[in-house]
Amino acid sequence: PASTELAPLCTPAMVVDVDIVKRNAQRMVDRYQDLGVKLRPHMKTHKTLECGDIMTGGSRRCVVVSTLAEASFYADHGFDDILYAYPLPFDKLERCAALSERLSLFQVLLDHPQALELLSKRPLRAIAKTEGVELTGVYAHCGNSYHCKGVEKIQAVAQETTTLTLQFMEKLRAAGINCKSSIGSTPSCSHPIKDMGQLSEVHPGNYVFYDVQQSLIGSCSMEDVAVRVLTRVIGHCPHRNQLLVDCGWAALSQDGAGRLPSGYAVIEGHPDLKLLSMTQEHGRVEPITGELDYSKYPLGSLLKLVPYHSCATAMMHSVYHVHSGGRLVGKWFPTRGW
Amino acid sequence: PASTELAPLCTPAMVVDVDIVKRNAQRMVDRYQDLGVKLRPHMKTHKTLECGDIMTGGSRRCVVVSTLAEASFYADHGFDDILYAYPLPFDKLERCAALSERLSLFQVLLDHPQALELLSKRPLRAIAKTEGVELTGVYAHCGNSYHCKGVEKIQAVAQETTTLTLQFMEKLRAAGINCKSSIGSTPSCSHPIKDMGQLSEVHPGNYVFYDVQQSLIGSCSMEDVAVRVLTRVIGHCPHRNQLLVDCGWAALSQDGAGRLPSGYAVIEGHPDLKLLSMTQEHGRVEPITGELDYSKYPLGSLLKLVPYHSCATAMMHSVYHVHSGGRLVGKWFPTRGW
Repeated sequence: PASTELAPLCTPAMVVDVDIVKRNAQRMVDRYQDLGVKLRPHMKTHKTLECGDIMTGGSRRCVVVSTLAEASFYADHGFDDILYAYPLPFDKLERCAALSERLSLFQVLLDHPQALELLSKRPLRAIAKTEGVELTGVYAHCGNSYHCKGVEKIQAVAQETTTLTLQFMEKLRAAGINCKSSIGSTPSCSHPIKDMGQLSEVHPGNYVFYDVQQSLIGSCSMEDVAVRVLTRVIGHCPHRNQLLVDCGWAALSQDGAGRLPSGYAVIEGHPDLKLLSMTQEHGRVEPITGELDYSKYPLGSLLKLVPYHSCATAMMHSVYHVHSGGRLVGKWFPTRGW
Repeated sequence: PASTELAPLCTPAMVVDVDIVKRNAQRMVDRYQDLGVKLRPHMKTHKTLECGDIMTGGSRRCVVVSTLAEASFYADHGFDDILYAYPLPFDKLERCAALSERLSLFQVLLDHPQALELLSKRPLRAIAKTEGVELTGVYAHCGNSYHCKGVEKIQAVAQETTTLTLQFMEKLRAAGINCKSSIGSTPSCSHPIKDMGQLSEVHPGNYVFYDVQQSLIGSCSMEDVAVRVLTRVIGHCPHRNQLLVDCGWAALSQDGAGRLPSGYAVIEGHPDLKLLSMTQEHGRVEPITGELDYSKYPLGSLLKLVPYHSCATAMMHSVYHVHSGGRLVGKWFPTRGW
């Protein structure tokens, strides 16, 4: 069967199910088309062109990035209307100015009067309207949605963030300032509330991959998680009732420590196993209870780890192996750095 | 002064003090020359050619690697006598065989009869003497030295590991098998005991950079730590008594969580500050006690983070900025992947 195409991959390897990626992306598109709100997908989780294409429906317009390296990478490949969602950096102003010259629309964030002062001394063309700076909108990230468990609590955070943002927009309007509003986090954007229809746009990102953390929050189900780290059994350690696998923190990241009964990841199809610890290149797997049946895990056999936090796991890989139903369809190469 | 050459670097940035690197490397060379034991430095911490040159005194011979990608990278650049210190991988046997053909000496680890069986079916030239496989030596890593605090405890672990290894070598000799012995970890190799003089070689790696963890174990002093992550203050958050800095886990890693009073790193020159939490691209800094004096940390000002675990931090960077006394002298580019 096609799924055997993954088996010859050298491990550890990050694999991405492109069908799930497309489904996650389409659901988010549909959700905000229905609400009449612009979707500005965040690129920080995957940092690839291909996933950027899928999230923007091929338009390569209207994205958010977390680093200037991402902004340059996407600009170099024909993306435009890029929002650099980071406090205006003091050390990268010239690079911001250069991007602003190249792009039709490049937006930066200001969160302090000193940053405004800096910007007024070196105005970026695209926002240079009133005294060198044009306020495009208000940007908020409801990061507290990551502390939620369940849709009801997610929607309470979404409601609070939306209400506060809309009240602030109202105050701006009363002062004669009309601008856009953008909020977002994958949990809140996966379960929008009605009032979010009054916002200009939303900017979730992780939803394209999702992960165990998002399933525990209630943003998605485990079936929606598009990424795995493939790992092989490389040792039997009966004196410790453990398996050794070839995935350490160099391939999975250390995110999720102490968060799951199954350790640093969920081991697909093996709810009885736990990834209890890792070194740089090794993982130690043990049964959650009882004795390990080594005959079920011969040396060289594959296990699939569902990451706790896909942003952190993806960061550890310079190539993602992309498959459709187990058939390898390509490789995606993320950008890195700042 | 020369130290201002670091200030214009875009942050976050990993910087390496090449003078400390050279001093750490030379001390380890001297230590094992005195003991009459071969030093086989591990490349896994830095994964660069330049640091490999410094650790081997320019010979490019006799190194250890943790991934086959490292083995290929070093082989491509004229390194030889490479030990791939990893259980013989079932998925990379052909790549191992190819390396074995190219190099004068390429050594692999076997830790299971099944791996021996695998190897006898596809013998690698360099170890193909007796029935396809030649036992070169015995390799041990005293990872338990990482649980030590202080030289006395490190040396107790070094003694235990050495004694067990030498007893095992004695049993092999009694069975007519003469081969080498290699042990190592940065803590034990930083404080060798007399009996280590009876070993064939040692294989530490982290010592070239060291880190906060090693200083707490007692392997080194804080003055021996060669790496920093430069970060800038990007926000003042008086409502939380915090600074925002532009170093998140994407630049520092999540290693060291909960290990230090100062949080995820030591902030050089600011023993009163704590890096209490990080997101992908942001760090939150607060005083260990009392109120933050924001006038000491203007927006844009630089802080230097001493990593808890330099192997994990280095892994997050695709370039290291190298300096001598604050004067930039080059960039090192590590290899990645498997």
